[in-house]
Amino acid sequence: MHNHRPTDRLEYFSDAVLAIAATLLATELPKPETETGLLQAIVNQWPHYAAFAASFLFICVAWSNHHNMFNYIRQTDQYLLILNILFLMFVTLQSFTTGLLARHVGKPDERMAALIYHGTLVLMTLFYNCVWWYAIKKKELLEDGTDKKLIRLLTKEYAMAPALHLAALLICLWSVPFSIIPVLLLYVYFALPWMGEKRVK
Amino acid sequence: MHNHRPTDRLEYFSDAVLAIAATLLATELPKPETETGLLQAIVNQWPHYAAFAASFLFICVAWSNHHNMFNYIRQTDQYLLILNILFLMFVTLQSFTTGLLARHVGKPDERMAALIYHGTLVLMTLFYNCVWWYAIKKKELLEDGTDKKLIRLLTKEYAMAPALHLAALLICLWSVPFSIIPVLLLYVYFALPWMGEKRVK
Amino acid sequence: MHNHRPTDRLEYFSDAVLAIAATLLATELPKPETETGLLQAIVNQWPHYAAFAASFLFICVAWSNHHNMFNYIRQTDQYLLILNILFLMFVTLQSFTTGLLARHVGKPDERMAALIYHGTLVLMTLFYNCVWWYAIKKKELLEDGTDKKLIRLLTKEYAMAPALHLAALLICLWSVPFSIIPVLLLYVYFALPWMGEKRVK
Amino acid sequence: MHNHRPTDRLEYFSDAVLAIAATLLATELPKPETETGLLQAIVNQWPHYAAFAASFLFICVAWSNHHNMFNYIRQTDQYLLILNILFLMFVTLQSFTTGLLARHVGKPDERMAALIYHGTLVLMTLFYNCVWWYAIKKKELLEDGTDKKLIRLLTKEYAMAPALHLAALLICLWSVPFSIIPVLLLYVYFALPWMGEKRVK
Repeated sequence: MHNHRPTDRLEYFSDAVLAIAATLLATELPKPETETGLLQAIVNQWPHYAAFAASFLFICVAWSNHHNMFNYIRQTDQYLLILNILFLMFVTLQSFTTGLLARHVGKPDERMAALIYHGTLVLMTLFYNCVWWYAIKKKELLEDGTDKKLIRLLTKEYAMAPALHLAALLICLWSVPFSIIPVLLLYVYFALPWMGEKRVK
Repeated sequence: MHNHRPTDRLEYFSDAVLAIAATLLATELPKPETETGLLQAIVNQWPHYAAFAASFLFICVAWSNHHNMFNYIRQTDQYLLILNILFLMFVTLQSFTTGLLARHVGKPDERMAALIYHGTLVLMTLFYNCVWWYAIKKKELLEDGTDKKLIRLLTKEYAMAPALHLAALLICLWSVPFSIIPVLLLYVYFALPWMGEKRVK
Repeated sequence: MHNHRPTDRLEYFSDAVLAIAATLLATELPKPETETGLLQAIVNQWPHYAAFAASFLFICVAWSNHHNMFNYIRQTDQYLLILNILFLMFVTLQSFTTGLLARHVGKPDERMAALIYHGTLVLMTLFYNCVWWYAIKKKELLEDGTDKKLIRLLTKEYAMAPALHLAALLICLWSVPFSIIPVLLLYVYFALPWMGEKRVK
Repeated sequence: MHNHRPTDRLEYFSDAVLAIAATLLATELPKPETETGLLQAIVNQWPHYAAFAASFLFICVAWSNHHNMFNYIRQTDQYLLILNILFLMFVTLQSFTTGLLARHVGKPDERMAALIYHGTLVLMTLFYNCVWWYAIKKKELLEDGTDKKLIRLLTKEYAMAPALHLAALLICLWSVPFSIIPVLLLYVYFALPWMGEKRVK
């Protein structure tokens, strides 16, 4: 038998890491060099603002879903803890990959930067799913009486994130600008109101 | 019907982002170059200290009001969550726009920097109001039996923030130094004791 | 009558700001330039490590005392909130003044840097005391039945901090190295075991 | 008699410092210089990514164990607080020593950087153990009825960390690459499932 602990401290720690990672994104924004006028300098830096907004929203959506997932997880064990820590590790890498992508938009290494950006998101969302897959396999970690249909629904929903980021990664090999399409799809998918309905506990 | 969840985790996450954003402001203070003597260098950097103090106080006031607002909001749904996340996004941009403004005081791009600073505050306080407007429109999100007069009072009070920042933005087009007047008015308005009385729950 | 609110969120926000301010101190440590060998470079940077340790311990002691003080404060109002925010503002300036002091040890502007360092601590601890003075003046903010002797004892104890930092500031005008004496006295004062006894609630 | 206080605020503050220290590690990752191509630049920076991952995992494991330890500690006093603060101080130094080590891999000062890295970990884990040793010596700080066998088991388990890091430090004097062996052993030791079983409360 494993060492089962309540999840409140794990949620607390995860919330803190996600909040800090989201807030640190703004500190990566470059100071505009104003030789060409401030407005022009800021307009030229649009990739930084776009990447900042995308990554900020992404981390907040991840936080919201992470919190939602732990509504169904009653306790943790050593393995779930480690999977969650790996998820958080890739969350904290977001500020690094966001800056990397923004600095290379329209430059020779744009594709490589986009591949690294999407690759980190694939790994982050994959470990997120691993936490869930592990929890539903070890049924004693779930809240008692969690509806099986709901579990299947959430499993599908969560799997959308790494699937669409993997799609973005593959599209990147062919065209970097089009790789934004699966990411936008993901945003729409998570923001749509009928999603909320399905997720009613 | 929507997915209604209690607001405690949302408040927790918002508090963390606001606390981090406020604390990070100090890391944007430039290291004084001491060729002209340390005291002189620090005196020359007064716009950085003034902008730091203004933004720190502003984020703390935003935290206080945000917390106050969620005394009346009982639960959240997907849309309220997204509006709150957009509010937080502009909060985290404060350290960027504060540094921008401070670096350009008394320089050619002063007006543009002030416009960006006030513009970000207009958007931040506007999304703050959107959270409130959405919550009072969807009455099931409010605490039961919240006094209608109180709701109207709070609605007016909260609307002061984007209105006065918009005024500051417009005054900027004519005179940057005078644009500080509506901001000071806002501070006085929120700090005055009779405000507290009105806000008694 | 004023708007009285419970203090838990204020404590939470203060704790978060203090924890972040303490942790950010380490990010101000300069990267050693290794032209002269790493060990030598690190030894040469001793003022940074000493200042880091002093400021880290100081913020942690401030956290501990702040938490202790709010054991006796039952609720807050608008003014107490503002005094507490001003206390936090000077806490977040610690990383700035710590780096300033460390960079100027043994250099011409050493005295000025030390004056700024001690001056910030005087203001920080003064606002800390203002929170307490305000709370004990407005007796309805205190926990019912708080012992009057205990209040007087705490008032004296808390006043030691700005008094000793003011002493450090004044000694600085005469000799910078000796200005560390009142700071060390303060540490010993707060760390001594019989202090704990007196503070038993 | 000492001043005994519940541990919840201490745990909260420690959690926050650990979460921030872990998240700040990513901000120390250097921006790749892309003269040689982005992929090559990133491959050349492997020591930074390896050191980031090692330190991130280490802080998360420290958090997990710290939280576990405080399951058995019922209250704190002044000394336990100070020992815990010293533990946290060395936690926050992790981002500094991690960057130091990563910048010197394969360079002349590699050994010195590794000695500093391992030395900081020895001190961090030693103060962690001091917290525990102090708590079990002052039995009134422990939860009532904590099993004596369990205490002995945890004491041995916790002592593994400074012992293995000291081993790494000593191996460093002879060979830097081999010094990673005790660190890996420590990871395996803490990750193994039978560890969890033993730690069941």
